[in-house]
Amino acid sequence: MTKAFLSLGAALLALSAAAPAQAEDGYRLWLRYEPVSGAVRSENRRTAAALVVASPSPLARSAHDELRRGIGQMLGRAPADRATVDRDGAILLAALGSPMLARTSIDAARLGAEGYAIRSVRLNGHAATLIAARDGRGLLYGSFALLRRMQMRQPLGKLDIVDAPRLPLRMLDHWDNLDRSVERGYAGQSLWDWQRLPLWRDPRIDDYARANASVGINAAVLNNVNGNADILTAPWLAKVATIAGQLRPWGMRVFLSARFSAPREIGGLPTADPLDPRVRAWWKAKADEIYAAVPDFGGFLVKANSEGQPGPQDYHRTHADGANMLAEALAPHGGTVIWRAFVYAPDNGDRAKQAFAEFQPLDGRFARNVIVQVKNGPIDFQPREPFSPLFGAMPRSRVALEVQVTKEYLGFATHLAYLGTMWEEVLRSRTDRPVAGARVADTLAAMAGVANAGTDRNWSGSQFDQANWYAFGRLAWNPDGSARSIAEEWVRMTWGNDPRLVDAIVPMMMGSRQAVVDYMTPLGLAHLMGTSHHYGPAPWVADLARPDWNPVYYHRAGRDGIGFDRTATGSNAVAQYAPEVARRLADRAAVGDDALLWFHHVPWTWRLDTGRTLWAELVHRYDRGVATVVRMRATWDGLRGRVDPHRHAEAAAFLAIQEQEARWWRDACLAYFQSVSGQPLPAGTRPPAHPLAWYEALRFPYAPGQPRP
Amino acid sequence: MTKAFLSLGAALLALSAAAPAQAEDGYRLWLRYEPVSGAVRSENRRTAAALVVASPSPLARSAHDELRRGIGQMLGRAPADRATVDRDGAILLAALGSPMLARTSIDAARLGAEGYAIRSVRLNGHAATLIAARDGRGLLYGSFALLRRMQMRQPLGKLDIVDAPRLPLRMLDHWDNLDRSVERGYAGQSLWDWQRLPLWRDPRIDDYARANASVGINAAVLNNVNGNADILTAPWLAKVATIAGQLRPWGMRVFLSARFSAPREIGGLPTADPLDPRVRAWWKAKADEIYAAVPDFGGFLVKANSEGQPGPQDYHRTHADGANMLAEALAPHGGTVIWRAFVYAPDNGDRAKQAFAEFQPLDGRFARNVIVQVKNGPIDFQPREPFSPLFGAMPRSRVALEVQVTKEYLGFATHLAYLGTMWEEVLRSRTDRPVAGARVADTLAAMAGVANAGTDRNWSGSQFDQANWYAFGRLAWNPDGSARSIAEEWVRMTWGNDPRLVDAIVPMMMGSRQAVVDYMTPLGLAHLMGTSHHYGPAPWVADLARPDWNPVYYHRAGRDGIGFDRTATGSNAVAQYAPEVARRLADRAAVGDDALLWFHHVPWTWRLDTGRTLWAELVHRYDRGVATVVRMRATWDGLRGRVDPHRHAEAAAFLAIQEQEARWWRDACLAYFQSVSGQPLPAGTRPPAHPLAWYEALRFPYAPGQPRP
Repeated sequence: MTKAFLSLGAALLALSAAAPAQAEDGYRLWLRYEPVSGAVRSENRRTAAALVVASPSPLARSAHDELRRGIGQMLGRAPADRATVDRDGAILLAALGSPMLARTSIDAARLGAEGYAIRSVRLNGHAATLIAARDGRGLLYGSFALLRRMQMRQPLGKLDIVDAPRLPLRMLDHWDNLDRSVERGYAGQSLWDWQRLPLWRDPRIDDYARANASVGINAAVLNNVNGNADILTAPWLAKVATIAGQLRPWGMRVFLSARFSAPREIGGLPTADPLDPRVRAWWKAKADEIYAAVPDFGGFLVKANSEGQPGPQDYHRTHADGANMLAEALAPHGGTVIWRAFVYAPDNGDRAKQAFAEFQPLDGRFARNVIVQVKNGPIDFQPREPFSPLFGAMPRSRVALEVQVTKEYLGFATHLAYLGTMWEEVLRSRTDRPVAGARVADTLAAMAGVANAGTDRNWSGSQFDQANWYAFGRLAWNPDGSARSIAEEWVRMTWGNDPRLVDAIVPMMMGSRQAVVDYMTPLGLAHLMGTSHHYGPAPWVADLARPDWNPVYYHRAGRDGIGFDRTATGSNAVAQYAPEVARRLADRAAVGDDALLWFHHVPWTWRLDTGRTLWAELVHRYDRGVATVVRMRATWDGLRGRVDPHRHAEAAAFLAIQEQEARWWRDACLAYFQSVSGQPLPAGTRPPAHPLAWYEALRFPYAPGQPRP
Repeated sequence: MTKAFLSLGAALLALSAAAPAQAEDGYRLWLRYEPVSGAVRSENRRTAAALVVASPSPLARSAHDELRRGIGQMLGRAPADRATVDRDGAILLAALGSPMLARTSIDAARLGAEGYAIRSVRLNGHAATLIAARDGRGLLYGSFALLRRMQMRQPLGKLDIVDAPRLPLRMLDHWDNLDRSVERGYAGQSLWDWQRLPLWRDPRIDDYARANASVGINAAVLNNVNGNADILTAPWLAKVATIAGQLRPWGMRVFLSARFSAPREIGGLPTADPLDPRVRAWWKAKADEIYAAVPDFGGFLVKANSEGQPGPQDYHRTHADGANMLAEALAPHGGTVIWRAFVYAPDNGDRAKQAFAEFQPLDGRFARNVIVQVKNGPIDFQPREPFSPLFGAMPRSRVALEVQVTKEYLGFATHLAYLGTMWEEVLRSRTDRPVAGARVADTLAAMAGVANAGTDRNWSGSQFDQANWYAFGRLAWNPDGSARSIAEEWVRMTWGNDPRLVDAIVPMMMGSRQAVVDYMTPLGLAHLMGTSHHYGPAPWVADLARPDWNPVYYHRAGRDGIGFDRTATGSNAVAQYAPEVARRLADRAAVGDDALLWFHHVPWTWRLDTGRTLWAELVHRYDRGVATVVRMRATWDGLRGRVDPHRHAEAAAFLAIQEQEARWWRDACLAYFQSVSGQPLPAGTRPPAHPLAWYEALRFPYAPGQPRP
C-alpha cells in the first residue's frame, strides 16, 4: 500500500514535470488565480464551497463563471452550483429586490448603479458570503472584488464591504485604425480583427472584456480619434456589433470615434455644417442605424478642429455647436458625446493656453449628454505636466480626464514606468476651483485612458505596462485611490504574494515614472522627443513647419537660460489657473522644481534649493534618472529565480533597453544643452558618449505607433 | 491506506480539473506531443527510457532538448540522460566518427550532409535506437523524425531508416518590412521585433526555429524582396545577428533581401552599376561586415528590375552581371545569391513570356554561387498556373522553385486551401527538359516558400494554414513526397490520431485547393482578383495604368469567347516549353480543362468532354467550388466534440467566411462574365445575389497585407 501511494505520488510528479510547458507569458494579466496553499486554502474552501446565483442575468452569469474559474484555480476545487443556501460556505449573488435579501439591510443609495456590498451573513442557518448590488453590473464587480481579496490572500471571514465607482464612465480609448494598425500603440496590432469580422468572434476579446471588468472599466472607444468615417458605414457597423456583443456580458459599452466630416465623406452631403438641417438629419439617421445594430451603443468620441481633423470651426461654428448637434442625434437613445478639448493653433504664442481659451468660454453651452474630455496637462501627455487649467474651470459642464495608458512619450512599451503615481499626482492637484480646496479628482464626470492593449501575447507590450492598464481602471473607479496600494495589489496578483517580491517591486514601480522624467525631461521641461515617431531625444529640432512642433519652442534654451516664461512677463498662461494657484506657479521660488521650467525661463546659474545651479541640477537630474534605472535593473536581477523565467527574462531585457535608452536621452540632451548654454560639465560628470552631431544624425523611420497618412 | 490512495487520486483529478485553462490555441503547431496511452505507451517507454548524446554540439543539444520535451510530454516521463548505453531502451545520438558507431555500418554517402539513419541496434548488450548522421544537423532531423513516428503512434521497434534531403537549401522567404508589417501577410505582424532588437531575444523565435527544424527548413530570408537598404546598415545588422543566433541551434541560416541600389542609398556612391569598381568594392566590404556579425550568413535574395525595384538593367547590364557581382562579394565567405526571375514588362504582349525571355538566354552565365529563383507558374502564384517554362530550360544554372505558403491569391488566411496538392502538381509536372521524362522536381537546386508565419497566436493566421508551412518543409525535403501522406502526417500530429478525424480531415484538405480554383479562377483562368489588395473578385477591372495589371488582360472575355490565346495564333507562349509539352498545350482538345483558358481563347459555346458548353462548364465549376465549401463546413461541423473547442470554433468561423466569400466570387464573376458573354444562365442556375454594379462598387482599402509605399 505504501508502494502504491509512492508510485501515485511519483506519477503525479512525473505528470506535472511532463505537462505541456505552456510558459507563463503574461497573457493572464493579473487574473492568474495562482493556487492557494496551507491554512488559507482550508479557510477559503470553507468560505467558497458553493455558489448561488439568486438573480440571473447575462452579467451575473459572467460573475458566476469567473468565480468558478478563479476559485477553482486558486483552491483546486470550483464551488458547487446550488439553487439556494443550503450549506455553510455559499457565495450568494443577489440583486436588490431578490427575496433572498429580505432579511438583510443593504443601503441601496450607497451602492448606486454599479456598486456592490460584500457581507458575511447567516442565511437559512448557514454561514454565507453575500454579494449584493442593484443589478448584474455590481454583482460582477463585487465578484471580482472577492476574487481580488482571495488573490491577495486576505481573509474572507467577517466581511462588510461597500464599494461603488465614483465616476459613471470609465473608458478605454483605442487609437486603432481600420487596417489594424494602432496609432501610438506599442503592443502589436489592434485587438479588433476587422478583416475576419463580423463572422469571427475572437475569444481574446472575451478575455479583454474580462480584464476590463475586473478593474471596473465599463466602456471602450474602438477606433482612432484621428477618425475615419468608414467605421460608420453598414459593413463596419456589423463588425462593431459583434465586438459589442462580446463586451456586453462584461458590463462594457462600445463607443466610436466619429469623424466630423462623415456626412460629406460617406453621406453624400455637400457640407458637415452642424447647423445645416440635412447634416442634423443625417446624424440622426446614422444614430438610429447604429442603435439598431448596437442597442446599448455608448456614443461618439470626437476630435474636432485639432491637428487637421475636421470640425465645426470649418463652418464658423463652435465646439458646442458641433457637440450639441451630435448629442441631439444620440439623446433619444441615451447616448453620449465625448468631445475632446485637445486643440492647439500655430499662432497663439503659447500652445499650452489654447484649450482653455477655446473651451472655457463655452462652459454651460454644452448639452447634458456631452462630456468635454481634457488631457491631464495643457500640452500632450508629457512625462510630467502641470494639470490642465480647464479642470474646475467648467463647473456647468461634465468634464472627463483623459490620460495615456500607452506610453507614447514615456519610452514606449519597453521602459518600466508605472503611471499610477503620475495620475495620482494629477488627480490630487489642487485646482481651487470651482471651490477652494477642490482637486482635479473633484471636478470629473469620467475618466478615459488611451489604451495600450494590443495583440502582443502580454497584451501591453511589456509585463509592467499591464500595471498601467490595471491602475487606470482602479483610479477611474476611485480617483482618490492610492497609487502605492494599487501597485501592491497588482504586484501580488501579477507576480506573487511573496513579501520579497512585493517589497522589491512596489518601490521600484513607485520611483519609475520619476526616473523617466529625470532622464527625459527634468525640472519641468517637455516635448524634447524626436519628431513624429516620438522615439528618443531631439531637443535640437527647430526646423519644423509650425513653431509649436519644435522642441526648441518648448525649452527655449539659450545662452541666457532655459525654460518657457508663462508668467505675466511671458505668455501669462498662469493666469488661466485659479488666482491662488496662479500666484504659486508664477513664483519661481514657490513653483517647485517639478514645474520650474514649464513656467519660468531661468538663468543657467540660478541656484536652486538643492544648492546647485540650474545647470548643475539639470545634469544631476539626468544622471539621477540613469542611476535609478541601473538600480531597477539590479533589483530585478535580484529576483531571478523568484519569478517565472519567461517573464523575468522579458522584463530584464526591457530594463536593459531602458538603461541604454536612458543613457542616450541623458547624453544627447546634455550634449545639446551644453552646446547651447556654453556651461562646462560639473566636475566628475561623465561626458556624453558621442558628439552632439552623432545624436542629431540618428533616424528612426520604422519606429512603431506612427500615424498612418 | 485505501483512503489515502483515494484522496490522492481525488486530489490528482481536482488539480487537473482546476489547472489554468490554457486553451488549445494552435500555438504548438504540429509539435503538440499529445500523451500516448495504453500498450503503445508501455512499448514506447521501453524504447525511449534513456538518452545518450555521443557527439555533443549545439545542434545535438537542440535535438536532445526536443527529445526530452517531446518524449516527456508523450510518455509522461522524459528519458534519462546517460553518458553511455548501459541499459535497454536508450536513444543514442552519434555523429559519424563517434567511437560508439565503431561496430555499426552506416553508409555515409546515403546520409549526405544533412541526412540521418535511425536504426534499432544492440549496443553494449542492450537494445538501443541509434540516430546517426554526419553532424548535428542530421541528428536534429533524425530526432524530429523519431518524434514524428511517436506522434503518429508508429512502432519504434526494428527501425532501419535512412533519409536525407534531396535539396540542400530549403528556405522560407519572409516579405517582412522594417516597420513590422508583412507584405502579403495574413497572420499578424512580422515575427521580428525590430524595435526591441538586438537586446530582446523573443522566445517565440526559438519556437519558430524549432518548427522549421522539425520539417527540415534550413534557411530564412528575413526581409521583404521589395527591399529596403536600411537592413544592411550596422544597427540593423546587429538586430539580424540576434535573430541568427536564435536560428543557428536549429540548423537555420539567415539570408537578407538586398536592395540593388543600396550602394547609392546607404553607401554614398553615385551609382549601383554592377561593373563599377566602387560598387563592387562596396558590396565586398558590406559582405565582410555582415559576416563579421553573422559568421554563417546565408547570402542575399534579390528582386531586381521587377515591379519598380532597381537592378542591373538600370545600367544596361544583365541579371547575370548583377547577380555575379554580388556572388563575388559573398563567395569568400561561402554565401549564395538567390536571384529572382519574377519579371514582367508592360509592353511584351504576354506577361507570361517575360521571365523565360529574360533569363533563359542567360543560362550558363551565372556564377556557381548564384541560384535563379523561379515562381511555380509564369504569372504570379495564382490558384492554378501551368509550370514555368524556365524549369528544365536552364540546365547550366542552379534553379530554385519559389512557391507561396501565404495565400495572397487563395483567400488569405481564412480560406481552407491545402497547398500540398498544388505543389505536388507542380513538382510532378513533366518538363521533358533537359531530358525526356524530366519533371520540375528533377530540375531543382532549392525550394523557397513565401512564409505565412506571423505573430498571430496560431502562427499562420488559421489552424489549417499551418498545414501549408508543414507541407512546404516536407516537400522541400523530398520533392517526390505525397501531398496526401503529408496531409495525413499533419492531421495526426495537429488534430489527433483518431481515424474518424484523419478520415474526415485529410479528404477535405485534399479537395480544398481545387475548390478555390473552382470558385475563383476555374478552367485555367487567372488574375481576376481585386486591385492591389488582391481580396475578392474584380474581373471587370480594365482601367489600370498598365495593361498587364488588369484582369481583362488575362481573361480576354468578350462576346466571342474567353481565354488567352498563347498558341501560335496568339502570343505563342507555348513555344517556350519543350516541343512535346508545347504540342500538348497548344492542342485545345489535349491541354486539359485545368489549363484550357490559360492557353486558349475558346468560344462560349464550345463543347467540352464533360458534354457541357464552355459557358455551362464555367457556371458548373463556380457552383462546384461553392458546393465543396458547403460540404467542407458540414464535415467540420460533424467533428464538433472530437476537436478541442477553441480550434474547432476558429476553423468553423473561417469556413463560414470561406463560404460567404466563395459565393461572392461565384456571383460576382458570373454576373460579370454573363454581362460580357450575353449567354443565359443554364436552367436551374441560381442567379447572382446582386447586380454586377453592386460587386463593382465594393471597396477594401484596409485589407491586410498590402505593400507599404
